[in-house]
Amino acid sequence: MQNYTDKIKDMTLEEKAGLCSGLDFWYLKGIERLEIPSLMVTDGPHGLRKQAQGADHLGIYDSVPATCFPSAVGLASTWDKELIYQVGVALGEEAQAEAVAVLLGPGANIKRSPLCGRNFEYFSEDPYLSTEMAANHINGVQSQGVGTSLKHFAANNQEHRRMSSDSIVDERTLREIYLASFEGAVKKAQPWTVMCSYNKVNGEYASENYRLLTEVLREDWGFKGFVVSDWGAVNERVAGLKAGLELEMPASNGLNDQKIVDAVKNGELDERTLDIAVERILNILDKAVTNKKQNATYDKEAHHRFARKVAAESMVLLKNEAGILPLEKDTDVAVLGGFATKPRIQGGGSSHINPTKIDNVLDELKELAPEASVSFEEGYDLATDHVDEQLIMKAQKAAKNASVAVVFAGLPDRYESEGYDREHLAIPENHRLLIEAVAEVQPNTVVVLSNGAPIEMPWLENVKAVVEGYLGGQAFGGAVADILYGATNPSGRIAETFPVKLSDNPSFLNFPGEGDKVEYKEGIFVGYRYYDTKQVTPLFPFGYGLSYTTFSYSDLRFDKKEIDDTDTLQVSVKVKNTGNVAGKEVVQLYVTDTEASVNRPAKELKRFEKVALEAGEEKEVTFTLDKRAFAYYHVELDDWYVETGEFKILIGKSAEEIVLEDAVTVKSTITLPFTIHRNTLVGDLLKDPKLEPVARELLAKYNPFADMQETDDKEADAPEMLDAMLSNMPLRAMVNFSMGKFTDEMLEELMAELNRV
Amino acid sequence: MQNYTDKIKDMTLEEKAGLCSGLDFWYLKGIERLEIPSLMVTDGPHGLRKQAQGADHLGIYDSVPATCFPSAVGLASTWDKELIYQVGVALGEEAQAEAVAVLLGPGANIKRSPLCGRNFEYFSEDPYLSTEMAANHINGVQSQGVGTSLKHFAANNQEHRRMSSDSIVDERTLREIYLASFEGAVKKAQPWTVMCSYNKVNGEYASENYRLLTEVLREDWGFKGFVVSDWGAVNERVAGLKAGLELEMPASNGLNDQKIVDAVKNGELDERTLDIAVERILNILDKAVTNKKQNATYDKEAHHRFARKVAAESMVLLKNEAGILPLEKDTDVAVLGGFATKPRIQGGGSSHINPTKIDNVLDELKELAPEASVSFEEGYDLATDHVDEQLIMKAQKAAKNASVAVVFAGLPDRYESEGYDREHLAIPENHRLLIEAVAEVQPNTVVVLSNGAPIEMPWLENVKAVVEGYLGGQAFGGAVADILYGATNPSGRIAETFPVKLSDNPSFLNFPGEGDKVEYKEGIFVGYRYYDTKQVTPLFPFGYGLSYTTFSYSDLRFDKKEIDDTDTLQVSVKVKNTGNVAGKEVVQLYVTDTEASVNRPAKELKRFEKVALEAGEEKEVTFTLDKRAFAYYHVELDDWYVETGEFKILIGKSAEEIVLEDAVTVKSTITLPFTIHRNTLVGDLLKDPKLEPVARELLAKYNPFADMQETDDKEADAPEMLDAMLSNMPLRAMVNFSMGKFTDEMLEELMAELNRV
Repeated sequence: MQNYTDKIKDMTLEEKAGLCSGLDFWYLKGIERLEIPSLMVTDGPHGLRKQAQGADHLGIYDSVPATCFPSAVGLASTWDKELIYQVGVALGEEAQAEAVAVLLGPGANIKRSPLCGRNFEYFSEDPYLSTEMAANHINGVQSQGVGTSLKHFAANNQEHRRMSSDSIVDERTLREIYLASFEGAVKKAQPWTVMCSYNKVNGEYASENYRLLTEVLREDWGFKGFVVSDWGAVNERVAGLKAGLELEMPASNGLNDQKIVDAVKNGELDERTLDIAVERILNILDKAVTNKKQNATYDKEAHHRFARKVAAESMVLLKNEAGILPLEKDTDVAVLGGFATKPRIQGGGSSHINPTKIDNVLDELKELAPEASVSFEEGYDLATDHVDEQLIMKAQKAAKNASVAVVFAGLPDRYESEGYDREHLAIPENHRLLIEAVAEVQPNTVVVLSNGAPIEMPWLENVKAVVEGYLGGQAFGGAVADILYGATNPSGRIAETFPVKLSDNPSFLNFPGEGDKVEYKEGIFVGYRYYDTKQVTPLFPFGYGLSYTTFSYSDLRFDKKEIDDTDTLQVSVKVKNTGNVAGKEVVQLYVTDTEASVNRPAKELKRFEKVALEAGEEKEVTFTLDKRAFAYYHVELDDWYVETGEFKILIGKSAEEIVLEDAVTVKSTITLPFTIHRNTLVGDLLKDPKLEPVARELLAKYNPFADMQETDDKEADAPEMLDAMLSNMPLRAMVNFSMGKFTDEMLEELMAELNRV
Repeated sequence: MQNYTDKIKDMTLEEKAGLCSGLDFWYLKGIERLEIPSLMVTDGPHGLRKQAQGADHLGIYDSVPATCFPSAVGLASTWDKELIYQVGVALGEEAQAEAVAVLLGPGANIKRSPLCGRNFEYFSEDPYLSTEMAANHINGVQSQGVGTSLKHFAANNQEHRRMSSDSIVDERTLREIYLASFEGAVKKAQPWTVMCSYNKVNGEYASENYRLLTEVLREDWGFKGFVVSDWGAVNERVAGLKAGLELEMPASNGLNDQKIVDAVKNGELDERTLDIAVERILNILDKAVTNKKQNATYDKEAHHRFARKVAAESMVLLKNEAGILPLEKDTDVAVLGGFATKPRIQGGGSSHINPTKIDNVLDELKELAPEASVSFEEGYDLATDHVDEQLIMKAQKAAKNASVAVVFAGLPDRYESEGYDREHLAIPENHRLLIEAVAEVQPNTVVVLSNGAPIEMPWLENVKAVVEGYLGGQAFGGAVADILYGATNPSGRIAETFPVKLSDNPSFLNFPGEGDKVEYKEGIFVGYRYYDTKQVTPLFPFGYGLSYTTFSYSDLRFDKKEIDDTDTLQVSVKVKNTGNVAGKEVVQLYVTDTEASVNRPAKELKRFEKVALEAGEEKEVTFTLDKRAFAYYHVELDDWYVETGEFKILIGKSAEEIVLEDAVTVKSTITLPFTIHRNTLVGDLLKDPKLEPVARELLAKYNPFADMQETDDKEADAPEMLDAMLSNMPLRAMVNFSMGKFTDEMLEELMAELNRV
């Protein structure tokens, strides 16, 4: 086997520098004289976007056809790890067939605000769900010998000013939310590459952030691949190389290669740093070449069928009053809204691909229900927000003449895309008015949504059912038919909170920031962590989704009632399909720290499992919880830390609907350092079992409030106040209040004594 | 006239150091050989707390009787500047009568959380209202030749760990909220002293915070008096003296005097710094001695009557369904709840005084309505939270037998006090159950509240009327009778938002902080600034209060429709009493920046006026607005800044109920600096009228997206996306994307050119 890293010693300085940036928009450089080939990398976490030769110079359009799977928001809504792995496998097969070495995805950024234009490309507001999805996606793709690029690292949660904005995020929030979303994917799946983001993080560009690219990614998490810049993210190339950014994309046209060469020559850059970068790139090249499959192909029709399955699994039934869904196959249906014939199946920007085919919703409905009369009216003009009364009236008429109206609505491309953020949660006025007009004349109105992120639903009370279709990929049409007619029982669960109104969102007051500074002042309270803790009722909670069947839970059991933080806890629970049709339930396990001395969310998702159950079937699900499930990030300790105390284990159908719970005690094996100083509070000494006796002795002699605590004066303060005053008093204040009885020297001796304990 | 400062040159180093700390708990040191007298300072912004000689060694109890006025929360609820001035006058008279030189108040801290145990001593959640109240209070006291001590400076917004907690507050928030609450009082009223708080502000103890004590207080605001430590707030004495803390209280027993002497001797402290401190203290001593009135006395009965008037003006009618209030004088009334016979008239801690007398609610009711049958039942045990079913049943019975039930309830001393914070907004269970039990049997239930800060009211829907009595001082009983029987028409308006639930409060996720760090992450969004902007519906909004009459507004007029930020704007509005009885209305003027490029609250209170109107009477109120009414604090500019654009002027009955509004344009006379650098965004150049032509020229040649913007490829991105990508592109990225056409050197030249424009 060829081992390219052996060739580093034969390379000139210029050749090594050259390997650290692209040849053009999509290819890495090779070195012909050393027989090092040029690799291709390609966009597309939900489908391949391989540019045909000779297109526009940025290489964006005219890509070869590929299967368009649902966007990441939909993939995450399946909560199905195995299914996401299989999507990865399919993408890997297509990449092999097109000779693509590395697929540029998946994206694991956290949905901080529903406004972020690129949310559809990301999985969730929850880091655990996000990282599980990303890890399975990566493992699937890489099982085919094709690399991935986990992106966009890190704290890149908006499109507004994305190349200059500076995300100001405290360390605990980074670790628990924004980095955690990547951490599990790196540790469990070792993506071949990680893509750094455009923005700054705490003052430093992600592309030259040593803390992120080297200390966190490599040293803490053990990342073994190379880091590639997002296209154009390089600011100062040499600083980036030093920080741990190995590959610049696209080509810098030799400009930055020269800067690297100059920096080595003038001593600014250690050549060893360059060698390590080249070695990391060549290691991946080794893998790519080794795993390259000759004459690989894939079955377009089979992939399309698989895309339909994935899309159906990704759809979330948000409302289903009076069991209006699934539809009877002989019901007359009025299909309304331009999205039914020209569905929005994917988002705009780098993930936008050229599908192998696109299902037509009407055809698919007719296919499944040949006896039904299906009429169609456009209802609104797809290209604009203009309200066309004629179109609405025609739609109303069709609705009136049918037994059920199904309105297709949502967000057009112009409303959400890579590159910019939304400014509100409304759908176009002509979509909204269509829904309202139809609901006015047809009590049996079903709404099917195509959108990449939450919208507001002022019409929710007026319709019977809502299906969240997200951006369902090329088989959206078939999948919708499957859901509407019950060929597939809906099992999607939203991976993000739908707020009632925009201002309910935790980032509302700090999004998208001022100038180039965006402060994440909501801290760890992102998504349901905020809605739960602040008791803000959402439109639909995180993890929510209905089914055509019902499930019951029982027998929540732990293998222990008390563990050390070095132990694991086995949690099992039984779930039963109590309805008449087969279905899938997502069993969600949340943990609450009931005795936290620091700020913690009301609950946090720590495990989940999607379970398929025949009608009447029951299964037991077992989860293993380790330290991390109970821990928070302790900044001074620079590590995860479990505070001794009681934790609740909650089993939920969503973050809002907890069906079973029980408590476990976890004991810390870590002792936090406690140094006594002049301003240590008396109350803190009293709370420490070891220090309390010494503190009591001190107070017996010098308690400045003793007189007051013993007075019988009618104006005397409440004992609660005197206790509080004493607790909140620093040691140095005892010197003052003792009026000379307790001196500075005595304080020094006391502190020495306490610090010895 | 004696001028003590002349004597500094005759003092020894030890004498000068000695003047910088107290003699004991309440006296400053004098110097007998130089005939410098020893002054007395005394607690009590709502009444004098002068300790009788020979009490407990901390000098807290056995204070001389004094008039107990309503606490600051009640004073602020009057929104009556002249009345607060008169309260100050009364306090000054009492201080003169007791030979007290300086009264330790008022407190001007902002109510960040309703939980702060000391909120009753503070005015408001709004800095403008707070500072207007403080200024009038100070001017009133000082008009009598008695000094004040504006406290607790600064960012001291909780009692929890108050001597060690570190308030982390960004500069803009400090300036606009927490410092602004003091600023106007210093500028308008020049308090003789300012008292620094216990806590740290951004890492530095307030008692040794040069930025706050010298740069802001003296240099920016022009404070001329001296700074005194809160009792025990001194950490390192020499550091404090250098920072601008002149006087340490109480006595340090010579310990810190010696440290000052040592520091001068070893060169650590410039003796000139000490001389300035002594001079500042002696300047105030001059004033005190000059203004001392011999044989001063005051009329206790007159002060009591005045306290009654103030209390009645401070009460806020929160609800009055079906006009149940005022009560008819022949109605049978059941008075229920121990607070009726033992009212909670003041808060616990340093402001707790020994009243000259205390009104009995029952007596006062009978006095005003001699014909009414007034029964009384205790309803709950005052001393505990224990629910006594017997007491409740008796109360229920009495309620049933009367035509109207008036329940007295609220927060006992043990629930709120200096020294500790509340942890929830509930009143004791036995108070709540009494209200609910009474309301169950008596539809005509009125609740009178005694509390220092907002409570939750789960029973609100079940009662007809609610009177917020706050902590009404010694004449609370008479004032309640005046309100209930309509002898006084309620005109109080709450100076703080009452939230539906605690978690609605903006500081909820960050109060009282973790360990010794409390981060003010809600920033400028304090109180109604948050509820308004986040669209969180409060229980009662800021500025809210009902009357027994009605008012209408008309003729909102501006003297100009456009001003420069150096001009003033005259705003006039007519208000008319449209009811049948005389009453007072608080005309509130709010300003909204409708085109702000930075985060600004939905509206901010900028002016207010309390107007007394006979039935049918109309008056015109005129306000003058200056730059500050439109400005925000611009941190880089380190000054107040008005962004050119449209502003709305809102006239409201509360922050929620806006009755009239109109817009004015304000033009900035300040040009903000704009330096072009490698990472300046193309979009920012395009937005600047002067730079736009150069930027357009650049794009004409090197726009990397030109091909894409012209493609007719079916996969082409939305034009919205390409525009956004271009806008968000930094200049340095054009070098990369131009593929060599636009070089680093050309960029350097371009930046130089743009920076010359």
